[in-house]
Order: sequence, then C-alpha cells, then structure tokens
Amino acid sequence: MSVAIVGAGPGDPGLVTVRALELVEASDVLVYDRLVSRELVERATRAVRIARDGLTQREVNELLVHHGRHGRAVVRLKGGDPFVFGRGGEELEALAEAGIPYEVVPGVSTLTAAPALAGIPLTQRGVAAQVTVLTGTTADGSDLDYARLAGTPGTLVIFMGAHRLAWIAANLILNGRHADEPAAVASRLSLPDARVAVGTLGTIAATAAGLPSPALVIVGDVAALATQRRRAAKEAA
Amino acid sequence: MSVAIVGAGPGDPGLVTVRALELVEASDVLVYDRLVSRELVERATRAVRIARDGLTQREVNELLVHHGRHGRAVVRLKGGDPFVFGRGGEELEALAEAGIPYEVVPGVSTLTAAPALAGIPLTQRGVAAQVTVLTGTTADGSDLDYARLAGTPGTLVIFMGAHRLAWIAANLILNGRHADEPAAVASRLSLPDARVAVGTLGTIAATAAGLPSPALVIVGDVAALATQRRRAAKEAA
Repeated sequence: MSVAIVGAGPGDPGLVTVRALELVEASDVLVYDRLVSRELVERATRAVRIARDGLTQREVNELLVHHGRHGRAVVRLKGGDPFVFGRGGEELEALAEAGIPYEVVPGVSTLTAAPALAGIPLTQRGVAAQVTVLTGTTADGSDLDYARLAGTPGTLVIFMGAHRLAWIAANLILNGRHADEPAAVASRLSLPDARVAVGTLGTIAATAAGLPSPALVIVGDVAALATQRRRAAKEAA
Repeated sequence: MSVAIVGAGPGDPGLVTVRALELVEASDVLVYDRLVSRELVERATRAVRIARDGLTQREVNELLVHHGRHGRAVVRLKGGDPFVFGRGGEELEALAEAGIPYEVVPGVSTLTAAPALAGIPLTQRGVAAQVTVLTGTTADGSDLDYARLAGTPGTLVIFMGAHRLAWIAANLILNGRHADEPAAVASRLSLPDARVAVGTLGTIAATAAGLPSPALVIVGDVAALATQRRRAAKEAA
C-alpha cells in the first residue's frame, strides 16, 4: 500500500484518468479538494472520505503520513493537476521525509483544459510560440512584476487572477501592453455552468465581471481565436 | 455525429481520460499520432485506423472534414494535450470553417505529466511562482531569444529542445544564467522506459545525452527538488 497523489482533472467526471478512477475506487482513505466533483468522490465507496476544506496544509500532510504509515490505500485527490499551483510538491516532500512510498498520477490541468474547451490554443504556429503561466495571487501577498510581464512575448495565463483583473489589466496597459490586445476569461470550464468571456485588455475586466471561480485569465493573440472560431461555426451553421 | 479532437495523455494507457476512452471505443474513424499507445489505438475495434505519420497537416485537416461531413464518428487522437504545441488549433479551425460540429477532450499534457512523474513541481511556494513554456525547435527555424529567456524568473520548460540542449544551455549561461542552476531532462515519462536526468545548466547536456524523445527540459530551482526527494526517500528506506 502507498499514498497516491492524484489529479482529478478540471471537474467534469469524464476528464478523470482511468488510473485515477481505479485508485479512488480501491481507496481506504480519500482526502479530496473542494473542486473535485461529488460524483467522483462517491466512487470511493469503501473509503473514509475527508474534505480538505478547513484543514491546514500541515494537517493534510500529517493525515497522509499517518494513514500511509498504517498501510492504508490513501488517495489525495486534487483538482486539476497536482503540480501546477497545486502544492502537490509540499505533500510529496512530507511523504518522502517520512519514508512513505508514494505514487503520482498526473491529471488534466486547468492550464490546458480551460483553453482547449474555450477553443483557445495556448500556442499556435504564427500566433504564439511561448506561454507564461503565473498566479495572480502570490503566496507572500506581493504584487506581480508588471513591467516584466508587459514585455513578455507570447501568451500569458493567469491562475487566481480573475477577481482582480481590472487591476492586472490596467497595470499591463500602463506598462506598455496595447489596450486592444485580445484577452479572455474561462470560468468553471468542463463544468455544466462553464462560461467564456472574450474581449481586450481594455474591456475584459468589465466583460468578465461576476464570472465565478475557478477562472483562468488568458492574455494574448490566441485569445482572439476563440471568437473567430465561434463566428466561423455560426456562419457555417 | 461529430469530430472529436482528443488528448491521449503522455503514453501510459492509464493516463487516458474516461471520456477519451469512450470516444475511441465508439469511433468509426480514428486518426492517431505516433506517440499514442498501441494499446489505446486497439480499443478502437470498429474503426478505420489511420496513422497520422506521413500525412501533412493539410491532409489531416481534409480527412477530418471529409469523414465528419459524412456523419461518421471521427476521433483525432493526439499525444499529450491537443493544445500545447499540439496544433489542435489548426484542426479546429479547419472544422469550424467547414461547419463541422466538433468536441474537444483535453488530455494530460506532457507539460504537467513529466514534472509530476519526475517529482518536479512546476511551481512551488518559495521556489518558483511562474513557469514559461516554449519550444526549442521553432516553426520558422529561428533560434530562441536567449537574452530575454535568461532574464525570465521562475521555471523554464522547453519542449523539443533536448536534442540541442548543449547549445541552449550554453546560450542561457552566456546571457547571464548561473552554470550551477538546477536543470533536468524528463524522457518518455509515463512510459515503461522513462528516465530522468538531473544536473545543472553546466552539466545537463552531458548527463542527459542520448535520452530518447519525447523529452522535456526543465530549468530552474524546482529541478533540484527531484534529487532532494529521491535522496530523502532513499535515506528513509
């Protein structure tokens, strides 16, 4: 027995991997994030199910080590992929330090799922050759380095930034980005209430106001492809 | 019926999503990439199976449009995720222009899978707050902007760069990166012959020489976490 750190994907139960489902169904102890679908959690029919909400990261680490040490099949089920702003690294470190064997099962990350489902490729030949991924809410509360970001080529993808998008967009423009550069917000993608707002750096904060989290902000020319394709599909229909 | 653009994940059949498997099994026509596992392709028992190898991108687009127009269940199965250097965007555009309905099923991207399986988180609190993803082989044959990359904070992830890593590493160092900055190459991760080489910018080209593709190059402090964890697990064992 070992502890598995498992990515649950962006929310749609169909976007769970075959291996993740196997491990969940065979688990004795399941520690799951708030964003993991209820349907998936309920597949752990024989497990003690523990919501991660309300626990500190340290308490989660201790839970995993404790049950792992007792030889239970422990699954730590995380929204998206465990290693993209998912703090899976900290949990692995705790397990390694305690000498508990572990398995990592990567999942479909919001980073790739949201653009795919919104019809926005992160890269596209002739449009964007590079992607920069960051979080809009830093661990130490410091603000972003807007001067540097404004000068970064390619696509910007911002996790946890939608709630302060007016500030982020204004600072990118103040530091030299064009107000008419394409931008999009992909909210709750893969879930039934998914929504995508498309606009420009100058308009996106207003257009996307009120879209619920989790939401991904995408800045760059690829964001305009979502609109183009939607229009093309509509004209053809 | 419609055309589905489906991510097959990094190679391990267990890292395919539930929805991808359903679509493959129900497909009439399957167009698959070289890196997709044979085991997964064989689940398309009733489909005409077409290897993408040897076809131009334009021919692939035409195949999808042709069979989609005839109302067949078409699955375009791509390694990793279709939208991270996967040219899924070009295929979607062709379908949209032809007015063919389509579905996108994101997959586990090599971008997230390789670091997860190598024990290297792309981001980690206090270590790296930003990830920049690029390709080491550009579409137009131009070289990378090393001056800018050398000044980019956080983690660098380079697709299709392992075969010219000596050149890339030397140029990053010439432009100001430290030769002792951690770097790793993750080769064929999720596959049975997966290998990870860990070193520094100064040593990684030699250490990783000969590792087969597909391989991801990871530059930055998070690369050192792989080694630390391996050591911790070993000491505890």
